[in-house]
Amino acid sequence: MNLAMVRYILGYILQIEGALLLAPALVAFIYQEGTIQPLLVTAFLAFALGLMLRWHKPKNQIIYAKEGFAVVSAAWILLSAVGALPFWLSQEIPFYLDAFFETVSGFTTTGASILPAVEDLSLSLVFWRSFAHWIGGMGVLVFALAIIPMADNRSMYLMRAEVPGPTAGKLVPRMKDTVKILYSIYLGMTILQIILLKLAGMPWYDTLINTFGSAGTGGFSNRNLSVGAYQNGTYEWIIGIFMMLFGVNFNLYYFLLTKKFKDIWKNEELRLYLAIIALATIGITINLGGLKNNLSGSLRTSFFQVSSIITTTGYSSTDFNLWPAFSKTILILLMFFGASAGSTAGGIKISRILLIWRMIIRELKRLLHPRSVGVIKLENKTVSEKTLQGVSIFILVYLIIFASSLVFLSLDNVDFETNFTSVLTCLNNIGPGFSLVGPMGNFGFYSPLSKIILSLNMLLGRLEIFPLLLSLMPSFWKQK
Amino acid sequence: MNLAMVRYILGYILQIEGALLLAPALVAFIYQEGTIQPLLVTAFLAFALGLMLRWHKPKNQIIYAKEGFAVVSAAWILLSAVGALPFWLSQEIPFYLDAFFETVSGFTTTGASILPAVEDLSLSLVFWRSFAHWIGGMGVLVFALAIIPMADNRSMYLMRAEVPGPTAGKLVPRMKDTVKILYSIYLGMTILQIILLKLAGMPWYDTLINTFGSAGTGGFSNRNLSVGAYQNGTYEWIIGIFMMLFGVNFNLYYFLLTKKFKDIWKNEELRLYLAIIALATIGITINLGGLKNNLSGSLRTSFFQVSSIITTTGYSSTDFNLWPAFSKTILILLMFFGASAGSTAGGIKISRILLIWRMIIRELKRLLHPRSVGVIKLENKTVSEKTLQGVSIFILVYLIIFASSLVFLSLDNVDFETNFTSVLTCLNNIGPGFSLVGPMGNFGFYSPLSKIILSLNMLLGRLEIFPLLLSLMPSFWKQK
Repeated sequence: MNLAMVRYILGYILQIEGALLLAPALVAFIYQEGTIQPLLVTAFLAFALGLMLRWHKPKNQIIYAKEGFAVVSAAWILLSAVGALPFWLSQEIPFYLDAFFETVSGFTTTGASILPAVEDLSLSLVFWRSFAHWIGGMGVLVFALAIIPMADNRSMYLMRAEVPGPTAGKLVPRMKDTVKILYSIYLGMTILQIILLKLAGMPWYDTLINTFGSAGTGGFSNRNLSVGAYQNGTYEWIIGIFMMLFGVNFNLYYFLLTKKFKDIWKNEELRLYLAIIALATIGITINLGGLKNNLSGSLRTSFFQVSSIITTTGYSSTDFNLWPAFSKTILILLMFFGASAGSTAGGIKISRILLIWRMIIRELKRLLHPRSVGVIKLENKTVSEKTLQGVSIFILVYLIIFASSLVFLSLDNVDFETNFTSVLTCLNNIGPGFSLVGPMGNFGFYSPLSKIILSLNMLLGRLEIFPLLLSLMPSFWKQK
Repeated sequence: MNLAMVRYILGYILQIEGALLLAPALVAFIYQEGTIQPLLVTAFLAFALGLMLRWHKPKNQIIYAKEGFAVVSAAWILLSAVGALPFWLSQEIPFYLDAFFETVSGFTTTGASILPAVEDLSLSLVFWRSFAHWIGGMGVLVFALAIIPMADNRSMYLMRAEVPGPTAGKLVPRMKDTVKILYSIYLGMTILQIILLKLAGMPWYDTLINTFGSAGTGGFSNRNLSVGAYQNGTYEWIIGIFMMLFGVNFNLYYFLLTKKFKDIWKNEELRLYLAIIALATIGITINLGGLKNNLSGSLRTSFFQVSSIITTTGYSSTDFNLWPAFSKTILILLMFFGASAGSTAGGIKISRILLIWRMIIRELKRLLHPRSVGVIKLENKTVSEKTLQGVSIFILVYLIIFASSLVFLSLDNVDFETNFTSVLTCLNNIGPGFSLVGPMGNFGFYSPLSKIILSLNMLLGRLEIFPLLLSLMPSFWKQK
């Protein structure tokens, strides 16, 4: 393990966070809020600590997969630990663990909150929470890659550890250029959504919060009633559609820019993703009685909620906890699904679902014709057996983490639906669940142990389990 | 597809069922119940239909895996469809679908009931329900193998399709002898439990019912309060220990008879199985407050319930639906686990859990050292990659069936805990779940569609998914 290099990269990350903290500080300055001091103090601390870690440039700059996992895991925990300070220093969230939970929820684009009323928070801290979504959505390491001077073949290890999906590829030969392209697309779409929301009549501050939440597929709002607070169908459609767009593999937008329309049209993950959204929307619309009255309203609400849940954003325009069991069950399934690989969304991802389906079909064929050999393809490329095995194991580990978390949470003695959807919503980076943690509830009632477990779940979910899981094993850190 | 041979074997199975129906008819005769007529009519029908199917002996007697799956699936559905007749003809269960559900629940050793009060049923029909557990536990095809004249290498396909676990092996060179040994052990242990319960003071009739339920890991009782009705600690211990014993791989009893003690002692599945039981029992005992008062009582109740649930029997000595969340969550996990391969229990099975665990460890090692190759062993034998893949796929299909069933059930608009544990308890052949389907509840309130789905779940669970799933695919039946 090249610990010196891990330290060095972490230094960069902390300095970046220090710089990013200036944004909420500016908001505090504009609105003349007392939070400006804790924000600036934290920014200074992060910058100084980052400088210290970067002081000695390591001689050996070679890193491997192992260092990639270590950096990514440590960076995400550190970012959250430092990012939580303004909430705690300002005493707007009195307990540090609660502040940590809230910040992890921000960076991992979960959107689960311990706050009973977000409108009690200062505007600058609400901004910071949502800004964390935007940063975490695309990935901090991925962002850092554009800045850190590092050999291209080495930065691949960081990229692989942070970008969601069964495989991570480059768009253009150089990794740095790939990162720049992806971040430009991200920024461009973000600006577009802000403009559209503004044109529809939303106040500037709210456009930022709602766009950060959609772009990062996070779901933090500045309103207790989330998007439902506006009672505005146009907002709902804009946010609903943009959430769906941010759940698409960003590579496809690059194809759009380079006019490879055929690659988009033939993309299997995109097709299945859109088909699931359409099917779920129709099913819920009917279940909500949309065929009997207010079809357009039911359709809008259904689409908004489906888009919000499958992309693991977690915005709500209505209290879907009160929906009939069928609609709720559909939402629970969508929570597991998640959106596309290479997007900002959490969850298992549609491409994994596709691969699982094809593996099952192959196995069924094999049972009947033991000598048959089947090759599995995705997007017209043969998927290696190693990747397929990785997908199966991912699901199995996912289930074990799910089950163990459930056991810990059950010590709090609340109902099964609450605990089950709490783990589900945190592990898949969604936000709200059902029952006590429904759209109108919050996670404040959980014990400290449960809050730690759920924070871990959010981090495991965002990093797709393996990097963090490996880093948590003592043997991982043994020098060889 | 050798349809003639499928028909021929099904004929045998029906004749066997006809003969088995004479047992409840005898009970009806002893207790002078009016059910003797519907029982004898059904026995005659089954025998006659069986004779018709067997009339022409097929010239081509060669079968393959495909025919094995077809026979097993068709046999189990047919057995249940015919076995349901006495309940319906006697009008003790007025709707045929309910009678079918109850009979499937019997043969698959689930023990889920649509009856609000079992004590309203005649003794002979309660006997038939429980006798079905005993028959289904070890497998009807396996039993038939001892009778049907068939080439040894062909009967292997029937055995494989019916015996639970990732692999099925022979104890002795000839399949017929293996079957006879297994059934003798089963019969011996059954008689032993009956004698012990009788010695402890239980009435004869009750000893049979409780032993059939334990041996088949089924869980049907002749009392509304299940084993709790007796308020007798000795019964609880005897039944608790025997359920645990019937959850052990039967091959180990053969090792015991042939004095291969080392093979038993070193058996990894047995060790993990016992460790899980011990751990879960201790955890629940503490959670129930056993350290504060009535330690022996809490320990007995905990052990009984853990043994009942992990073996997927489903007997209850108390209303565990009222237990605290931690104990309930442990029980839910045990429901997924199931007991050992090669036992009469349902569920995922401990040996699969072991293999999954080892696959995960191997994958984690591979992520750090991409060139490492790891061989996975179980019971000191290398497990083929094909088997490992089969285990992963089994879990994935299991999840898909679970999720789809949940969607169908949600149309009934009952609470999530009820629907979730209904699917769980039927797919794993347990019996009671939580909330509305807890130990004091029943499945009668579900819609016909849900009852069909749950019946399918029970059959899929008992046959470990693949045989029935394949048979349900239209392409399976196409001649080639």
